[in-house]
Amino acid sequence: MYSDKVMDHFQNPRNVGEIEDADGVGTVGNPTCGDLMTIYIKVKDNVIEDVKFKTFGCGAAIATSSMITEMAVGKTIEEALAITRNDVADELEGLPPVKMHCSNLAADALHAAIDNYKEKM
Amino acid sequence: MYSDKVMDHFQNPRNVGEIEDADGVGTVGNPTCGDLMTIYIKVKDNVIEDVKFKTFGCGAAIATSSMITEMAVGKTIEEALAITRNDVADELEGLPPVKMHCSNLAADALHAAIDNYKEKM
Ligand code: FES
Repeated sequence: MYSDKVMDHFQNPRNVGEIEDADGVGTVGNPTCGDLMTIYIKVKDNVIEDVKFKTFGCGAAIATSSMITEMAVGKTIEEALAITRNDVADELEGLPPVKMHCSNLAADALHAAIDNYKEKM
Repeated sequence: MYSDKVMDHFQNPRNVGEIEDADGVGTVGNPTCGDLMTIYIKVKDNVIEDVKFKTFGCGAAIATSSMITEMAVGKTIEEALAITRNDVADELEGLPPVKMHCSNLAADALHAAIDNYKEKM
């Protein structure tokens, strides 16, 4: 049901945690299951230097968040905003349709964190 | 939203994994989110000697499974069958209503594993 890459990011998630002095924080909820996802970003000279996430969500939510933190680090704010839900699913070599709600949390929370960063500038 | 005990079992889940030569294996699915939960038991002289679980489910599913493995070890088959969904939630000092679907997986999978053990006897 899940690709090796999904299982790897689920079992060894990258960048789990909080950034205390984050420049942007975004939280989004999954209407289907009530789970929350929070992403923290640290930005310097318009480039994302660090990303961390926290969730109580399922394996698909954990795998996509872990994946997107790796995709976002080193990117400019504009490049990071251009990462779509589908980009993350593609990078993970696919996700089952029933899990799209869960996996959308990652991209949505990253975009929310970037919006929060822009508001504070 | 979650008790300290839930967070502890979510962040440090006990008895994650498989039992290769299990005496009983039970798998149940969560109709809401599509997640699966599998519980493996090892039985000797009618007593559960070892329990392990595997899931792709959310934090509530992980916490309840971790909790129920601790509750079931050392119990007789009859005592383990008597553990209800509510017993697990009580032991965890409560769970939010939106998560009842997820947290029911643990008790249901344990019961399914015991049924499987009985069938094989
Ligand atoms: S089931 Fe809640 S995030 Fe996937």
